[in-house]
Amino acid sequence: MASPDRPASSTSTALLTDHYELTMLSSALADGTAERDCVFEVFARRLPAGRRYGVVAGTTRVLEAIADFRFTEAELAQLAATAVVSDETLDWLADYRFGGDIDGYPEGELYFPGSPILTVRGTFAESVVLETLVLSILNHDSAVASAAARMSSAAHGRPIIEMGGRRTHEYAAVAAARAAYLAGFATTSNLEAGRRYGIPTRGTVAHAFMLLHDTEEAAFRAQVARMGADTTLLVDTYDITAGIETAVRVAGPELGAIRIDSGDVGPLARKAREQLDSLGAKDTRIVVSGDLDEHAIAALRAEPVDAYGVGTSVVTGSGAPTAGMVYKLVEVNGKPVAKRSEHKASRGGRKSALRRHKPTGTALEEVVYPSAAPPERGPHDRELLIPLMRGGQPVPDLPTLDDGRQRLRRALVSLPWEGLKLSGGDPAIPTTFS
Amino acid sequence: MASPDRPASSTSTALLTDHYELTMLSSALADGTAERDCVFEVFARRLPAGRRYGVVAGTTRVLEAIADFRFTEAELAQLAATAVVSDETLDWLADYRFGGDIDGYPEGELYFPGSPILTVRGTFAESVVLETLVLSILNHDSAVASAAARMSSAAHGRPIIEMGGRRTHEYAAVAAARAAYLAGFATTSNLEAGRRYGIPTRGTVAHAFMLLHDTEEAAFRAQVARMGADTTLLVDTYDITAGIETAVRVAGPELGAIRIDSGDVGPLARKAREQLDSLGAKDTRIVVSGDLDEHAIAALRAEPVDAYGVGTSVVTGSGAPTAGMVYKLVEVNGKPVAKRSEHKASRGGRKSALRRHKPTGTALEEVVYPSAAPPERGPHDRELLIPLMRGGQPVPDLPTLDDGRQRLRRALVSLPWEGLKLSGGDPAIPTTFS
Repeated sequence: MASPDRPASSTSTALLTDHYELTMLSSALADGTAERDCVFEVFARRLPAGRRYGVVAGTTRVLEAIADFRFTEAELAQLAATAVVSDETLDWLADYRFGGDIDGYPEGELYFPGSPILTVRGTFAESVVLETLVLSILNHDSAVASAAARMSSAAHGRPIIEMGGRRTHEYAAVAAARAAYLAGFATTSNLEAGRRYGIPTRGTVAHAFMLLHDTEEAAFRAQVARMGADTTLLVDTYDITAGIETAVRVAGPELGAIRIDSGDVGPLARKAREQLDSLGAKDTRIVVSGDLDEHAIAALRAEPVDAYGVGTSVVTGSGAPTAGMVYKLVEVNGKPVAKRSEHKASRGGRKSALRRHKPTGTALEEVVYPSAAPPERGPHDRELLIPLMRGGQPVPDLPTLDDGRQRLRRALVSLPWEGLKLSGGDPAIPTTFS
Repeated sequence: MASPDRPASSTSTALLTDHYELTMLSSALADGTAERDCVFEVFARRLPAGRRYGVVAGTTRVLEAIADFRFTEAELAQLAATAVVSDETLDWLADYRFGGDIDGYPEGELYFPGSPILTVRGTFAESVVLETLVLSILNHDSAVASAAARMSSAAHGRPIIEMGGRRTHEYAAVAAARAAYLAGFATTSNLEAGRRYGIPTRGTVAHAFMLLHDTEEAAFRAQVARMGADTTLLVDTYDITAGIETAVRVAGPELGAIRIDSGDVGPLARKAREQLDSLGAKDTRIVVSGDLDEHAIAALRAEPVDAYGVGTSVVTGSGAPTAGMVYKLVEVNGKPVAKRSEHKASRGGRKSALRRHKPTGTALEEVVYPSAAPPERGPHDRELLIPLMRGGQPVPDLPTLDDGRQRLRRALVSLPWEGLKLSGGDPAIPTTFS
C-alpha cells in the first residue's frame, strides 16, 4: 500500500510550508519587491498563562531543516499540478537556497515576552518562505522544553525518564524527547531519539509482559534471567505488597529497582521503601510513573522516590502545547516596519538583547534594543544572540545539545528565586525595550 | 551539516518505539512466551474533561506505518551499538513483519469511554512492538479530529480553513491538517498535506506582504495584479475602515473577500459588512481568523462572517492535545487477562462493539461486548468494528479520507442533541459493557 506519510523520494522540507508564503512570493516576484532586504524576527508576545520563563529549543533543528529546504522535481511537480504559483515562481523556487544570515538565542537559553529569539536577514523572497517551518520547530520544541525545565527543577536532582512518545505525533515524539533531554531529563524511552540525537534510552517492561505470563513470579523470573537482577521490576499489576515480596524473592536484595505506575504514588512509595528495607533490599530504587507533571513531582519531594517516569504532561507542554511564537517582518531596506492597527501591534526594526544581572549573578531584566543602537554595557550584562548562519551556511562550532543542557542549568540558577516557583505568576524578570 | 531529523537512508518506522517493547520482546523470546497468541486493544478510559464524544482518526496512517515497520540494517546497527537487546532478538527483528489481524473503528467514527477502537491479534512478539507507533498516531490524530469536529459543528456549514501548522511540530502539522479535514474543515494552508493527502490548500498573504510594500494600496495592487480580484485582501494592517475602502477601490466590487485577523472580530465583521455593502461589494466575503476556537466560532454565528481561519486551537486539540488512548493486552492463548490492582483496572477478553439507536436514528448507547458472545442485535443496532488487516495485509477497499468525512457527518447527526453542546458535560451516550 502507498505510504504518503513518508515519501521515500524526497527528504525536502520545502512543503512544510503554508500556501500563502508562496503566493506572497509569487506576487512579490511579479512586482519587484521580492529582492528587498528584510529582517524577520521570531518572538513570543507573552509566555503561556502563569509561566515565569520560557526555554528556547529547536534552534539546531531549524538550521538542519533550512539546509533541506529545497524544491526538487517532486515538490515543483506538486506545486505545478495544484497551480499554487506562476511558472516564473516555479523557476525561481527550483534554484532556491537560503543565502542569508541568522542570529538567535542558543538552545537552553531562557526567553521572556518580546525576546528576539531568532532573527532572519535576507531578501524578502528567501526569508518569507521559511516562516512556517521555523515556527513549527521552535514553537513545538520550546513548549516541551519549557514544561520539562519546570519538571527537572521540581525533581531537584532526581532523574526523570521521558516516556511520552505514545501520547503525541510519532515524529513530534522524537523532537519532544530531545527537548526534554535539553531541559535536564536523564533519559528517554524513544529509540529514534536515541538514534538521531544520541540520547540514552531506557526501558524494561509494561504490564503486558506481566499479563503474558501465567504468574507474576514467572514474569519476574523471565525478566531477571534476561536482564539481570539490576533491572526494574513492575510491581503493581496485581497486589503491590505481594509484588514487592515476590520481586525481592526472585531477584534477591540486589534488585535494581521497582516501578509503581498507578495509584497514589506518594504513600505507596513510602510503604514500598519500608517493605524493601525490611527485606534487606536497601539499595533497591523506587521508580514512579503514571500521570506525573511538575506539580505531582514537587509534591513527591519528601517521599522516598528515586526516579520519575513522565509521559503525557511533558510531550504536551503541561497545559501549554505551543510556545505561541510569531515570525514578523520588522525591517525593509533598512527601515523599521510594524503593523500599526490597534490590535497585535508590533515593534519595528532589527533588535538585539542582553540580560542584566546583579553582581551576585541574579538576573534583573531582559533588555531588547535596536541592533544599531546598543545600550551601554555593564560588567554583569550578557549578550543573548549568537550568530547561527552566515550566507546560508551554519557557522562553525555551533553549540551542541549538551551545551544547551549546561546553558539552561546555569540560566535557571540565575533567576530570582520567585522565578522557579511552579505556581502561576508574572515573568521572572521584566522585558525592557530601549 | 548532518541532518538527523530526516535520515535519508531509511523510511522505517521501527524505531518510533519505546525501548521497553524490545526488552520485553527479548525476555519473551528467551523464555518461550513470545509466540503466545495475544489480543491487544486500544481504548480510552475516558474522554477529555467535559467532552461529549471523541472522533477516531489516524487508522489509515497506522496501517501505513505498520507496513513500514521493518528493521533494516540501519535500525539493527543502532540497536546493536546501544546494546538494547540480545543477538538472538536482533536476528528475530531482522525478519520482522507483522503477520496478524487488525480490526477497528473506521476513521470518522465516534468513540466513547471504553470503545474498542483498535484490536490487534497476533503473537505477543509481533504485536507488542507496535504499541508506541499505534498509540502515537491514534492519540494525536484523534485529539485533533475531536476538537475539529466541535469547530465544524459550531461553524454550522460555514467553511473553516486549517492554518495551525506553525503552532505544532512540523510533521504533526501535516497529520493535523488531515485530521481537521476528516472532521469537516474545508481546506488547509499546509502544502505537504496537499501533497500527501490531496487536501485542497489555500492562502493569500500575511501582514509581512503588506509591510513589504510602501503603502497598503501598493500591496493590494500587487496582489490583485497577480491573483485577480477574486483574491482575499488582508485589511487590518493599519486601519480597517481605510483598508476596506482601499481594497474595494483597488479590486473593484468584485473583490473576492477581505480578511480580518485581529481585534474583536464580531463587531468588526458587522462594521465591515455594512461598509462593503455601501461600497457596492455585496458579494465580497468576510474571512476572520486570530485565536479562534469552537467557542469563538459559535459566538460568531449571528455575525456576517463567511469563513473562519483556525490555527492554534485545532492543532493542539483545543485544550486536549492527546486522546489518552492506551494499548492493553486483553487476551493470551484465548484466555482473558487484565490488570487487577485497585488502580487502572481493565477488562479482559477480546471485545467488539455496537451502537444502539432509536428507530428515529438517534444514538442510545455504546455496547461493548465479548467478541465470542455477541448480544442479540436489534434493527437499529450498528456494528462498529471493521476488518482492517488480515495476515499482515491491509484488506481491500479500505475507507478513504472522504469516506471518513461523510461517516463523521452522519454520526454527528445521530447524536442526541445534548451531545453537540460545546459546554462541558458527560459523554453523549453511555457505554455499556455486556
